[in-house]
Amino acid sequence: MNTQISTDICIIGAGPVGLFAVFEAGLLKMRCHLVDVLPQVGGQLSEIYPQKPIYDIPGYPEIKAQELVDNLMEQIKPFDPGFTLGERVERLTKQEDGSYQVMTSDKTSIHCKVVVIAGGLGCFEPRKPDIENLQLFEGKGVSYMVKDPELYRDRKVVLAGGGDSALDWTIFLANIAQEVTLVHRGDTFRGAPDSAEKVFKLAEMGKINLVLSAHLNKINGDTHLEKVHLLSKTKEEKILDADYLIPLFGLSPKLGPIGEWGLNIEKSAIAVNTEDYSTNVERIYAIGDINTYPGKLKLILSGFHEAALMCQSAFKYVYPDQKLSFKYTTVYGVNTF
Amino acid sequence: MNTQISTDICIIGAGPVGLFAVFEAGLLKMRCHLVDVLPQVGGQLSEIYPQKPIYDIPGYPEIKAQELVDNLMEQIKPFDPGFTLGERVERLTKQEDGSYQVMTSDKTSIHCKVVVIAGGLGCFEPRKPDIENLQLFEGKGVSYMVKDPELYRDRKVVLAGGGDSALDWTIFLANIAQEVTLVHRGDTFRGAPDSAEKVFKLAEMGKINLVLSAHLNKINGDTHLEKVHLLSKTKEEKILDADYLIPLFGLSPKLGPIGEWGLNIEKSAIAVNTEDYSTNVERIYAIGDINTYPGKLKLILSGFHEAALMCQSAFKYVYPDQKLSFKYTTVYGVNTF
Repeated sequence: MNTQISTDICIIGAGPVGLFAVFEAGLLKMRCHLVDVLPQVGGQLSEIYPQKPIYDIPGYPEIKAQELVDNLMEQIKPFDPGFTLGERVERLTKQEDGSYQVMTSDKTSIHCKVVVIAGGLGCFEPRKPDIENLQLFEGKGVSYMVKDPELYRDRKVVLAGGGDSALDWTIFLANIAQEVTLVHRGDTFRGAPDSAEKVFKLAEMGKINLVLSAHLNKINGDTHLEKVHLLSKTKEEKILDADYLIPLFGLSPKLGPIGEWGLNIEKSAIAVNTEDYSTNVERIYAIGDINTYPGKLKLILSGFHEAALMCQSAFKYVYPDQKLSFKYTTVYGVNTF
Repeated sequence: MNTQISTDICIIGAGPVGLFAVFEAGLLKMRCHLVDVLPQVGGQLSEIYPQKPIYDIPGYPEIKAQELVDNLMEQIKPFDPGFTLGERVERLTKQEDGSYQVMTSDKTSIHCKVVVIAGGLGCFEPRKPDIENLQLFEGKGVSYMVKDPELYRDRKVVLAGGGDSALDWTIFLANIAQEVTLVHRGDTFRGAPDSAEKVFKLAEMGKINLVLSAHLNKINGDTHLEKVHLLSKTKEEKILDADYLIPLFGLSPKLGPIGEWGLNIEKSAIAVNTEDYSTNVERIYAIGDINTYPGKLKLILSGFHEAALMCQSAFKYVYPDQKLSFKYTTVYGVNTF
């Protein structure tokens, strides 16, 4: 059954930034439809850390991730956005009049005047080490991000990598895990000098094991990870008991079909113009963690700002004959369609 | 008595954006001191519309202006900022080492490594019509902005101007005031076409009086405004009964001493770079409603974003020997000094 939807703006990604874009679009009388591969809204917030507090949402000294999502859903309710959840965007077809048809994995077709990519980290995948049976242990001891640090309490953890994530999680887990080993190919770190210093100090104090100039070679176990084999540059092997292995080698873009849309990609993200967060392709914008520009910070609050400026620019495609007049909600309130 | 203060960042303006900058600075271990000419924090929010709801703070479907200020104060509490309230910044002196000394009207001296101007609308003043005894009636019927529309309920109001503010408030007050007159020098409006259209329609329906090609000539009254005299291009005089006169001719920068600091001024605002919201003068940043750049929207949420990016850049002046490492509060929490 092919569902046919028609809207002003199709937002790919229903995380906090995609959700807030509905509000800013609604103020300008533009309707939105959101598509997300996850079965629920909220993106990373709902998927990875719903119960974790966030401290840097302006005006909230502390708010649980899911509560922020719930509040955003409440805030956009007056504008009644559409949702297609649990489906992946597969194709984008430019129509003769400049508008787009977005097609999902389940053949939902969304006709829209503007496409906004707010796919966040969902558009990336971790870089994986070259280990033969790695996939066998994914979810059984091997993971590429720390979702819930409590999982590692009193367990034996091997981390690998030389950047900030590897350093930061090593420092963090040193207080939680029974045993932490950090493996790094080089002998200096790319991460922040003060973090590297802390790691060296923890190693000196015997609080962590630091194995430099070595790489992950093999892993094995029965139904769950049990051993991690390291190989040094001098070809010495070291076998560690390990409940968990966390390779932290950064992310690479998993833009999927988005990669075929001709967008400029820089630093594993979509390059945008800071005037309106437009991409190099007309009528396609990118906001939130998926975009990059000079000074970019992957903060939710920055995505909110990007959403607001994007809408001012998208307006010209939705209402080509109207002049946009900027209005404050404090004066005018929130008027629905 | 000369107070001497030393800090990392001196923030001029303690409105919502200045306050949130303290939080972002604090995450990077930079201390802040705020100066505001108003006797309380919160800027426009506390001064002009504390009890008004704001609808476009992300994550708050509705929040009263003062409540947002209170929440921001709570959020920055861990970083214990200093405040100098009720004093105006008068002088900025560059020190030999590149740092600044900020001097206030009450001779409070603040030594800092970075200056952030977050002065918002406080740095602007309304353009005033050329009427002889205008000042006599300021606060006695003449005002240059609508703080509380309820003030005009069932009263006779004359508005003047041809831009969006004049159009928007005319439309808004048409439902509240007993009698609304809009006076405009020209016969077409600069504001949004749909607003202009609404104003013409309201005039046709007899809901407002529209006087085009005329200007404000005289005002008089006893202890309060009573009459507004208009003069048409053809030199005809028209005398209106009026309880209130609201000239809405836009704002001009009242940068005061800030105007002498060599900053690039564009469109009555301080021009900044969107990479870090720096001005053309080293170590001086401008965030919030006081700055301008391509795409700028005077939204609180944009000021929050600007504050975050500004802090990443200011860090190099506060900690010249350290490499900045970006950390998420969700992982690391909020650590104070």
